[in-house]
Amino acid sequence: MLSSDFKKQYLRTLANCDNSLFRHPQRTMTERLQSLLPLAAQYSEADCYGQGELVNEFEQQVAAMLGHEAALFLPSGTMAQTMALRIWAEKKHCNQVAFHPTSHLQLHEQNAYQVLHGLDSCLVGKLNEVINRADLDTIHIPLAALLLELPMREIGGQLPTWKELEAQQKWAKSQGIALHLDGARLWSCSEYYQKTLAEIGSLFDSVYVSFYKDLDGIAGAMLTGSAEFIDEARIWTRRLGGNLITLFPDILAAKQGLTDNIPLMPDFVAKAATIAKLFNQHFPTHTIPLCPPCNLFHLVIEQSAKELMPKVMKWSEQYNMALLPLPRTQTDTSCRFEISIGQNALKVSNHDWQKAIASFAHDIILD
Amino acid sequence: MLSSDFKKQYLRTLANCDNSLFRHPQRTMTERLQSLLPLAAQYSEADCYGQGELVNEFEQQVAAMLGHEAALFLPSGTMAQTMALRIWAEKKHCNQVAFHPTSHLQLHEQNAYQVLHGLDSCLVGKLNEVINRADLDTIHIPLAALLLELPMREIGGQLPTWKELEAQQKWAKSQGIALHLDGARLWSCSEYYQKTLAEIGSLFDSVYVSFYKDLDGIAGAMLTGSAEFIDEARIWTRRLGGNLITLFPDILAAKQGLTDNIPLMPDFVAKAATIAKLFNQHFPTHTIPLCPPCNLFHLVIEQSAKELMPKVMKWSEQYNMALLPLPRTQTDTSCRFEISIGQNALKVSNHDWQKAIASFAHDIILD
Repeated sequence: MLSSDFKKQYLRTLANCDNSLFRHPQRTMTERLQSLLPLAAQYSEADCYGQGELVNEFEQQVAAMLGHEAALFLPSGTMAQTMALRIWAEKKHCNQVAFHPTSHLQLHEQNAYQVLHGLDSCLVGKLNEVINRADLDTIHIPLAALLLELPMREIGGQLPTWKELEAQQKWAKSQGIALHLDGARLWSCSEYYQKTLAEIGSLFDSVYVSFYKDLDGIAGAMLTGSAEFIDEARIWTRRLGGNLITLFPDILAAKQGLTDNIPLMPDFVAKAATIAKLFNQHFPTHTIPLCPPCNLFHLVIEQSAKELMPKVMKWSEQYNMALLPLPRTQTDTSCRFEISIGQNALKVSNHDWQKAIASFAHDIILD
Repeated sequence: MLSSDFKKQYLRTLANCDNSLFRHPQRTMTERLQSLLPLAAQYSEADCYGQGELVNEFEQQVAAMLGHEAALFLPSGTMAQTMALRIWAEKKHCNQVAFHPTSHLQLHEQNAYQVLHGLDSCLVGKLNEVINRADLDTIHIPLAALLLELPMREIGGQLPTWKELEAQQKWAKSQGIALHLDGARLWSCSEYYQKTLAEIGSLFDSVYVSFYKDLDGIAGAMLTGSAEFIDEARIWTRRLGGNLITLFPDILAAKQGLTDNIPLMPDFVAKAATIAKLFNQHFPTHTIPLCPPCNLFHLVIEQSAKELMPKVMKWSEQYNMALLPLPRTQTDTSCRFEISIGQNALKVSNHDWQKAIASFAHDIILD
């Protein structure tokens, strides 16, 4: 295990690098606030308890983007998704919902679906694989909803094929089950499917998307669905304490992040494929998946964190380059990193990435 | 009933007035964001999932102000309070909690305490009066917690005496019941009690305070209590979807609002007493309570909203003064307004308020 002092020092080192492989440029609070000023000036007033031109216009925009009738801006994805499942559970008079064992609901929400919403989970799919149509045949209990995640974050941003997705949607429909999408990082999936976000979103009864991950917002999420579904969601938002007097900084940043980053998604995805290929050329690194279908992948290095990370820190200082975040998971003999490609990676040419990654692999191997 | 068109027009009229009796100066989103820049520059990084110097230092500051060991910044009061009651309910192995029939939990939260947290309510106290010690003797069921509100918003900001408060605290202690404070507008209560906020807060096992009402923040709340209680609250925050990647704009604005407005609280309270007195000199207006103990009171005018409000709008336009918000409640023959005194009222001298209110009463009576 890495000490918390080392972690802090490592993050400081990364923050000081001029170049970075992952995510978007780090900005100070001052820079973030200043960046919102031009958009803020375009609206006469802030949202007030979920109402007003700023938020309602943005909700309409995102609903349309995702092929749905209505949308609701929310403080967080945890709130959005547990709420969505609760609504489907009440509508279907059934408190059982299905999701993958690596779902955010299972790993990162202190069992909110259960403790707070009284839902029971049915875990579906193999641990390191996307859910497929055959997995659904193993479900032998009645369900209110099936949650799919696109891309699946904890397994390196893998995606099922479009045919698979359609088959799963058909199955859900045949069972009278709601299909909910955890689309926290959905934005980059259009490329692989060669479908619009609306075409992907339309397969689902409800969709959650996030604004601060790939889109570089401050915080915040959107839940989309039918007008009736969103009316229900507004009531649950009040209950959960998510109906704030205003969320204007988050809304402005989300709106801006969408405008700035959606057009770059094809570049992020292409860059991710290139970078992954470069890593895969060099033992002892490999990516999961080998050919990333979106802007996210995992990088596995077969060394312990204690052995590896001091070398990575030294390398980063020497080359003024943030190549790896802290490991997302680790074993005694390997580390797994989440690489999310955003604006930072685009600033460095493929040729320079090739040189950097070759040097990195060389130094890590020879050390 | 007033039409929504009239309401919009009325709010526009108020927004255009140079002087206002209630609340703080209205600021555009741009002005708000700009006002945060100096404070933002003092911190090297934003809070991240509830951690970091900015938020943890502020939590410590507010915990100490309220006489408690620990505190937790949260997106909303609804989240803070239902969470607090849920924690007490689990700790006491009892799902019954007591509060006043006008509590925010009863009126404005879509029954979250019940539907979301599985709590049962025991309503205590008379509808238009503060809860007193004798009311507690009418409780004949086991309770996990008693929630008191200081000041009581829906009845015009009334406060029980200090002796009453102490007696209620003693009762709660003798019953093994947790005492929770809805202190959304607590900040102005020191004057009446001649006690510090820490002395008031110390009577309670947990306290919720708000940053955007009297303090002019953007949004956000704080929950304070023992370190053990706050540890539990962090888990519930995660479950409720309130543990955001960052809340920095809200935290900065809250911190600034506290610094700017706490020193002015005695002035707000004195001004509220003066203004209420002026209204009470003029039939057909009177305040609830007659002598406000804090910076909040209700003003009752014995006319229907349909009759009254067009005259108020005309008067406001003529005198360039926002004297009344939209009615908070109304009957066929009367309107009740919530007057919350902040920085706006201080900008006008008592002499000028006297002239304004006399003119207002004259015009409203003669019309």
